[in-house]
Amino acid sequence: MAVSDRGAAPQAAEPTSPSATPPALIALDWGTSSLRASLMARGPDGHGLVVEETAFPWGIMATPEGDFAKALDIATGDWTRRHPGLPMIAAGMIGSAQGWQEVPYLPCPAGAGDLVATLAAQPPVPGTALRIVPGVRQGGELPDVMRGEETQIVGALELYPSLWQQSLLVLPGTHSKWVRIRRGRIEGFTTYLTGELFALLSRHSILGRPAMEAGAPPDRPLSRAAFERGVSVTLRAPSRGITSLLFSTRSLVLSGGLDAIDSLDYLSGLLIGDEIRAARTDAPAGVPIAVIGASGLSQRYDFALSLAGITGVPLISGAATTGLWRIASGLSSDNPSRESLS
Amino acid sequence: MAVSDRGAAPQAAEPTSPSATPPALIALDWGTSSLRASLMARGPDGHGLVVEETAFPWGIMATPEGDFAKALDIATGDWTRRHPGLPMIAAGMIGSAQGWQEVPYLPCPAGAGDLVATLAAQPPVPGTALRIVPGVRQGGELPDVMRGEETQIVGALELYPSLWQQSLLVLPGTHSKWVRIRRGRIEGFTTYLTGELFALLSRHSILGRPAMEAGAPPDRPLSRAAFERGVSVTLRAPSRGITSLLFSTRSLVLSGGLDAIDSLDYLSGLLIGDEIRAARTDAPAGVPIAVIGASGLSQRYDFALSLAGITGVPLISGAATTGLWRIASGLSSDNPSRESLS
Repeated sequence: MAVSDRGAAPQAAEPTSPSATPPALIALDWGTSSLRASLMARGPDGHGLVVEETAFPWGIMATPEGDFAKALDIATGDWTRRHPGLPMIAAGMIGSAQGWQEVPYLPCPAGAGDLVATLAAQPPVPGTALRIVPGVRQGGELPDVMRGEETQIVGALELYPSLWQQSLLVLPGTHSKWVRIRRGRIEGFTTYLTGELFALLSRHSILGRPAMEAGAPPDRPLSRAAFERGVSVTLRAPSRGITSLLFSTRSLVLSGGLDAIDSLDYLSGLLIGDEIRAARTDAPAGVPIAVIGASGLSQRYDFALSLAGITGVPLISGAATTGLWRIASGLSSDNPSRESLS
Repeated sequence: MAVSDRGAAPQAAEPTSPSATPPALIALDWGTSSLRASLMARGPDGHGLVVEETAFPWGIMATPEGDFAKALDIATGDWTRRHPGLPMIAAGMIGSAQGWQEVPYLPCPAGAGDLVATLAAQPPVPGTALRIVPGVRQGGELPDVMRGEETQIVGALELYPSLWQQSLLVLPGTHSKWVRIRRGRIEGFTTYLTGELFALLSRHSILGRPAMEAGAPPDRPLSRAAFERGVSVTLRAPSRGITSLLFSTRSLVLSGGLDAIDSLDYLSGLLIGDEIRAARTDAPAGVPIAVIGASGLSQRYDFALSLAGITGVPLISGAATTGLWRIASGLSSDNPSRESLS
């Protein structure tokens, strides 16, 4: 199936009502914490449309009995019985050593074409039609790795062609990534442990105790003032180091300078602010920045970026399914060498 | 009781065999994780000698039934029955809002004389002879607090008079502190969450998993090579930020560049190295640095400091009991205004 050129207006692969066109792909985003499955069909412009979707908290570490085949059948069996012979593609930690089938990392620089070529050359998971997109690694003294993000990046570049020539893509999350793009390929990237640190510190450390004792519900809306304060502190103290700034979450509450109920929002601001402080040294002036995702977390990054003077940043939704569709399209394309696949 | 001047040779208040002089003080180091009680007597030179000591895992958060009076009786009742009327002094989190009696923080600058004067003006814990040394706070945009460390500092300055005029004292631990001393008083300080971060990351994060799976016993000796590598990485990448360097603990193991069994030593090097990187900006050239404590952790700091070019650093043991004795001596001194109390 060919993928047509697109206009400038971004359009994500969002769920839509079942269309007249038959389903053409089962796309899986199977990571550490969840499995999201999408039944996709070709839209009028050749792009993928999500026809049905389902999600389970069955990340690779929490798949019941570690039985990936059974989990896949529960998630997608209804679709495969209704539409036999559908191709199936997955991205994420399901391709790691702890996943179903280990797929080696591709070295940087890597783009959609490299992912497609590797995927075409490797067998599907035995007994299934499932092919797993490889992750990407960066070598050097401090190597770095990604699994799943490479597919979201393919989707984001498809949705926002202006990011193709050169850009810096931010993927917030448990392990946030800042990815340098040049001519559609991942040139290099840096992972920040920001999300995991926030979870650990708010649940298990002395810093999380005041908010817990104050009875802050986990879903309360962000205190923008407390978050902004945390971001500003890190941006103003570039050499001080986050491990000392973190302690101010406690000392400010003790000294009456911060309401306990807002303290986790301040902590979030410290951590995200420090990530932006460190990462923007990778961003040459004039290179466009975009955030992949449109969740509350992405909006929080957008706010923090604006405090660092980085404004007008697109928040890109639907990148994972768009990327999975794009890679699957390359697999079945009769012209895999076109430039946007490079 | 007066405290005489001392020669240059440092000598800590270590346990000794019961001396002919009768016990003169019960000294308690009562923090978040443990209660250490010492029965002390006046040594031949007027300094405190630890005659007997005992320790319990009864930090203020783990005191059985939260019954501090009962814990104190179990720890020291034998001594008080044998030697009725002994004065009793404590330092640490026992004086916090979560402790037995909240003792307000003293503002910086604060020295032994300020601690003694405050202690003399406040009542003992009701029903006991126990007096609790106040903590110290630093104001400003990012306030900071300590409880217990102020007493160790008094002891360290007593043991190493050369640090009195101006120095930078390092107190490694769950919440490491770097304390600026001028003319015997705490002028300011910075807390680093280093120890708590190491514990959280090694126990609960993805970074700790490889060492766990490799079966690294918690008490195995330090891999100096892996630790040194972690320290060196942070010292060479000053602006990169620790939250991204942390992830290299995982990516180095994944890429075969670091043995899983050594990975926590590398992580420890990253965290301690980053602390030193940030904190040495507080250290004007020529100001002596000392580490309080002589445990394995202090030796690890000494090694990391040497990698940062800071050598010949004394590791000071016995600071807590020496400090408690020194403050108690000031309380009963008939000349509390002498210079070394300033």
